Amino acid sequence: MENLLVQKYGGTSVGDAERIKRVAERIKSYYENGYKLVVVVSAMGHTTDELIALASQISENPPKREMDMLLATGEQVSVALLAMALHEIGVNAVSFNALQIRIRTDSTFTNARIEKIETERLLQNLEQNKVCIVAGFQGVDAEENITTLGRGGSDTTAVALAAALQAKECEIYTDVDGVYTADPNKVKGARKHEVISYDEMLELASLGAGVLHSRSVEFAKKYGVILHVRSSFNFNKGTLVVPEEQMMEKLLVSGVTLKTDEARVSLTDIPDRPGIAAEIFSALAAQKINVDMIVQSTGKDNKNTISFTIPAKDLRQAREILELLLKQWGTGSVSFDENIAIVSAVGVGMKSHSGVAASMFRALADRGINIEMISTSEIKISCVIAKDRGREALQVVHDVFGLHEL
Amino acid sequence: MENLLVQKYGGTSVGDAERIKRVAERIKSYYENGYKLVVVVSAMGHTTDELIALASQISENPPKREMDMLLATGEQVSVALLAMALHEIGVNAVSFNALQIRIRTDSTFTNARIEKIETERLLQNLEQNKVCIVAGFQGVDAEENITTLGRGGSDTTAVALAAALQAKECEIYTDVDGVYTADPNKVKGARKHEVISYDEMLELASLGAGVLHSRSVEFAKKYGVILHVRSSFNFNKGTLVVPEEQMMEKLLVSGVTLKTDEARVSLTDIPDRPGIAAEIFSALAAQKINVDMIVQSTGKDNKNTISFTIPAKDLRQAREILELLLKQWGTGSVSFDENIAIVSAVGVGMKSHSGVAASMFRALADRGINIEMISTSEIKISCVIAKDRGREALQVVHDVFGLHEL
Repeated sequence: MENLLVQKYGGTSVGDAERIKRVAERIKSYYENGYKLVVVVSAMGHTTDELIALASQISENPPKREMDMLLATGEQVSVALLAMALHEIGVNAVSFNALQIRIRTDSTFTNARIEKIETERLLQNLEQNKVCIVAGFQGVDAEENITTLGRGGSDTTAVALAAALQAKECEIYTDVDGVYTADPNKVKGARKHEVISYDEMLELASLGAGVLHSRSVEFAKKYGVILHVRSSFNFNKGTLVVPEEQMMEKLLVSGVTLKTDEARVSLTDIPDRPGIAAEIFSALAAQKINVDMIVQSTGKDNKNTISFTIPAKDLRQAREILELLLKQWGTGSVSFDENIAIVSAVGVGMKSHSGVAASMFRALADRGINIEMISTSEIKISCVIAKDRGREALQVVHDVFGLHEL
Repeated sequence: MENLLVQKYGGTSVGDAERIKRVAERIKSYYENGYKLVVVVSAMGHTTDELIALASQISENPPKREMDMLLATGEQVSVALLAMALHEIGVNAVSFNALQIRIRTDSTFTNARIEKIETERLLQNLEQNKVCIVAGFQGVDAEENITTLGRGGSDTTAVALAAALQAKECEIYTDVDGVYTADPNKVKGARKHEVISYDEMLELASLGAGVLHSRSVEFAKKYGVILHVRSSFNFNKGTLVVPEEQMMEKLLVSGVTLKTDEARVSLTDIPDRPGIAAEIFSALAAQKINVDMIVQSTGKDNKNTISFTIPAKDLRQAREILELLLKQWGTGSVSFDENIAIVSAVGVGMKSHSGVAASMFRALADRGINIEMISTSEIKISCVIAKDRGREALQVVHDVFGLHEL
């Protein structure tokens, strides 16, 4: 639909009655400019956390199906209230939960994937000039059980709707102005991007830039949905997330990020035989421990060294798993380091330019910052350094790629 | 189904995590005794009031469709938590909202009526030995909009499910032990009934005995569902509500009640012509003012007197409406009295026994309690008296019919 906008408002934007009214006013301004609107809303403020706390009073490990049944109520409250706020200012609006518009997902409760959206009911209501308010974050499986899409899943709901309805654009409203070259609270000279590619956004998202849910970006890439990340507190243009082909100029580096909640694990003198890595990482995965960077150095004397990073909060659990493995192998040792930070540079321009990694390593070396681990992808370079040098390293890397001059 | 029980737990019974766990234990004890169970739950404690307060921050007169969308979340939270609590103690349970099991209603939002319940999904789950937890109070209309059944609607959900599934019994759990001859906090010698008829229960409910939602009793009567009103805090037998034919002994009077939140309105010297009463009560109904007792005395000189009672809280609004009518008629006057109480006696035995009314009037007269208005139905006698004699009158009537000796 030519003049169709999908807008998504996060939990902060609808945190209380006053904010919901402000969002309604914003929607009205688009409505009066002739747009058709489908609006996706998250649960108010801390609702989801409160519901989780309630469940934990009853069970330490509640069935996931029931968890989703519980959590889905948060978004249903938001959509009803936003529809009320729109009626109050004379805009005809109608709210829907996932069951009502059949946002079909698989049955992976608490982390479901959208498979299909039926658009009939939405199209009907859009034709009647109604604003459609849709509960984000939730879906239904083939048996009509309620599912949820995981944290940040409302972004994915919005993108999936934009794809299904062939919307002009999918606006993601957050409390920041757009996507920055680095966190402006941490880096002097950080700038907002006007445009960024899906892949860069994906790397930045997975590095904790935190503006967008990774899965929503994958979805947008797959279906070519133009994302517009912008603030709900002003009318400034934010950042467009687009296919790489549409980017006029490809930056060598488009963003730098810092992660300080990871820990490094090193396994040394372990057997050098096929399947060792699989054994380690399957054991960690079975306990849902997310491994980030992995570096394996060449073995000698049939011994091997593997280092990787995991969330610091999972250290204790990882230690138990790994010590068990060492016991089984009868060889090797394990060490842990919580005093680390990961500084990363992301940019599609890296694909075609050599020397990016070298510039980054040189800049860090010039400041006497030691690099403990390196991992690279096509469009990303990550270095593990000492935690107390993290902020400084972030600024150094931002500076060396001239991001303040964009 | 032979061994199927429908149980309904009200908002107080599931008021917090601890209480939900206690309800789960209770359900487990029935489950282990071989019962199939369908459990209807209300929203936790004050949830519904809190949601209404939230809506009122956004709109003074929110669209009813959206109100129902909002309120239905309260019960969904309860069913999910109760299912979790059952899993925690090893009982296989699954929760459903009204959309999932298709509790079909008309489209009268905030006060919908149940038309049909599809039992397929429940039967399937019951056969798999699962306890089915169903959200009370809510339904869906033909377009799958969410509706609610009005305050106390969870009782109706339970009865409708019991009827649709041909349950052995529908247990309504409240915070009292059953249905009493009078409020035991107000009347010395008040006794619990073992059995009471639908019609008596209906009159007692509409008189504010407050144990059961009137519509649920009508529904139970229509489909012959045996109700069992009992406490969720003990295993005592409560009160069975049954068809009149099943009652061994019909009591002359089965209960007495007192209402103190009503006011009397008297219209005197108003025109004595057809349509006058309709005019008055339509005008009040349009403002949703509930009229209870109505007494019209014979007119003379083409003038008429009509007295009736309304909730005291609606007095101001009623005054405006009535003064407007008097102005239009150009004749008559209106007076108001807030210092009233209504004492009533209810019993199916009245149908076949004369003299019940006379005994009641005599007992009040003997204590010097003046009767200002009288209204009777087949199984009820109500008298308006001075408010400060209310408690005394209640005891007197309870005593005169020997209810303490049951």
